[in-house]
Amino acid sequence: MNGNQRILLASRPTGAPTIADFTIDTGPVAEPAIGQVLLKILYLSLDPYMRGRMSAAKSYAAPVEIGAVMEGGTVARVIKSRNPAFAEGDVVLSHSGWQNYALSNGNELRKLDPAVAPVTTALGVLGMPGFTAWAGLANIGQPKPGETLVVAAASGAVGSVVGQIARLRGARAVGIAGGPEKCAYLQDELGFDAAIDHRSPDLNERLAKACPQGIDVYFETVGGKVWDAVFPLFNPFARIPVCGLIAQYNARPGQAAQQDRLPDVMRTVLTKSLLIRGFIQREFVHQREQFYKEVSEWIASGALRYREDIVAGLERAPEAFIGLLEGGNFGKLIVRVGEDAI
Amino acid sequence: MNGNQRILLASRPTGAPTIADFTIDTGPVAEPAIGQVLLKILYLSLDPYMRGRMSAAKSYAAPVEIGAVMEGGTVARVIKSRNPAFAEGDVVLSHSGWQNYALSNGNELRKLDPAVAPVTTALGVLGMPGFTAWAGLANIGQPKPGETLVVAAASGAVGSVVGQIARLRGARAVGIAGGPEKCAYLQDELGFDAAIDHRSPDLNERLAKACPQGIDVYFETVGGKVWDAVFPLFNPFARIPVCGLIAQYNARPGQAAQQDRLPDVMRTVLTKSLLIRGFIQREFVHQREQFYKEVSEWIASGALRYREDIVAGLERAPEAFIGLLEGGNFGKLIVRVGEDAI
Repeated sequence: MNGNQRILLASRPTGAPTIADFTIDTGPVAEPAIGQVLLKILYLSLDPYMRGRMSAAKSYAAPVEIGAVMEGGTVARVIKSRNPAFAEGDVVLSHSGWQNYALSNGNELRKLDPAVAPVTTALGVLGMPGFTAWAGLANIGQPKPGETLVVAAASGAVGSVVGQIARLRGARAVGIAGGPEKCAYLQDELGFDAAIDHRSPDLNERLAKACPQGIDVYFETVGGKVWDAVFPLFNPFARIPVCGLIAQYNARPGQAAQQDRLPDVMRTVLTKSLLIRGFIQREFVHQREQFYKEVSEWIASGALRYREDIVAGLERAPEAFIGLLEGGNFGKLIVRVGEDAI
Repeated sequence: MNGNQRILLASRPTGAPTIADFTIDTGPVAEPAIGQVLLKILYLSLDPYMRGRMSAAKSYAAPVEIGAVMEGGTVARVIKSRNPAFAEGDVVLSHSGWQNYALSNGNELRKLDPAVAPVTTALGVLGMPGFTAWAGLANIGQPKPGETLVVAAASGAVGSVVGQIARLRGARAVGIAGGPEKCAYLQDELGFDAAIDHRSPDLNERLAKACPQGIDVYFETVGGKVWDAVFPLFNPFARIPVCGLIAQYNARPGQAAQQDRLPDVMRTVLTKSLLIRGFIQREFVHQREQFYKEVSEWIASGALRYREDIVAGLERAPEAFIGLLEGGNFGKLIVRVGEDAI
């Protein structure tokens, strides 16, 4: 053990975060007290919601304090245990943040069995992002056979699961992603009915063409120009689960559009009986086992696929995270923290 | 019978309608064919949704054609019947529009019993507006004991029922209305917990003070500046049924605000897990009997009160309707069409 390398929030970004908003320090590795375990982090999940934690703005969770370790979901190995529920060598899901080592009293740990599924899936398709997709569809989006669903960031951790579940429920899935490689992946590997590059100048026309029967479910993860493309195509009684607005996260104050879009949106909510509903997956935590069982089976049978984008080295987490906000990743973004990761 | 006086749509208004957007003509009174009845209109309901029918913009219902009779709900008496289901003298709810006489094949008529409730209530508290209030709360707003509900146009046909039902369900009801007389009525007659005059320059501060625990349900009927006052006060998981946007109906193209409010609204939808849902009461038509039973009982027991603003003379319908859009009415606005109205 060469000390605990930690990545701290150095400053709150205005607009897009930069490397200078993070600092790395190295401190001692703590010793577990009675009831605690010492965890060695193997994998760190990088997710768009972390951009929110870097800001002081009020949200559903408290911001990370300046000088504190960046928070995040992790897969870790128990290397010292003074808690009878855990043995050395156990691999667990934890929320230990951007660092090499962490203490835990065990309360929020979930044991993982590497024989059942690769442990990284606990951060992606079988973890928070996969559950976000499943729960948003089960409770809000509710795609029905023959309906059309649209999702953006469609090759990402949430979007890829959204589109595939929609198809498994009998709906058409139209994905929006950045670049031809991701679009080809959506259609050829994941079976999306159509894939559209959001960089194409005629995004709106292409989307309209890909949705000849209109849009019944729009799973909102990005906002921005994709919203403007989707908005005119809503069918009556369309459902819009909102779990992210990645295109907005880096907006600077005052960077507003010239026109107030709210009156038109509310008018359409009224005339088309739209449902718009924000959510965070933990609201549906009681459905977690149902999700886990259903999606595990789909993965085992090959009905549902996933892709991980694994970056090696904790020190690369800031640049990888900055890239994530710009769509630079291809699949669920994970940092391999420990050299001995499984 | 001195002929059938009819009020026609003369032109599509830009902004607020004017008297010149309507014309009156007098034509012959038609004779019923086999299977038809001839109706003499007794009462005409004036409702904000009619502003939408005057515009060509796509909505949930087709616009009224230029030169056609303005549409609207009516209470009428059968004066000639060639339909065995109806006898001369029957009083019915119909959708005969702004005129003195109309034919009907009987399909959409509902018989009314003047002994059970004043027939005008079929246009208000026991009709479409009352059902809009009841259904929006039962299916979307779902106020719970101790929660805070806000409704604007609160002394009107929908708002007054919304606030009173919320209280009957154990919630606090805060009403917004125009002027001290309406506000006093809300508190003193209808039992609202607080009433706020939207004309007061410190509307936002007053509303915040009246909602110290935030807002759990906002029943949206008006939009505009009331939305801006309500918006910062939403609690997590607040529900927003949207059945009208009267403050927007007369907006002219290009009359937009300086700032795009949509990103902030969507961010709040996300961080507070808000539910926004547009609806029209006929979506819930299967619940109509349940509504009728529950609200009739409340009226009979005195638990729910209503107020009607009755204007005499069909020829006054245009000016009364123009006033309705400006909040000039006080209670459910109804035109007494027939001199022999019950």
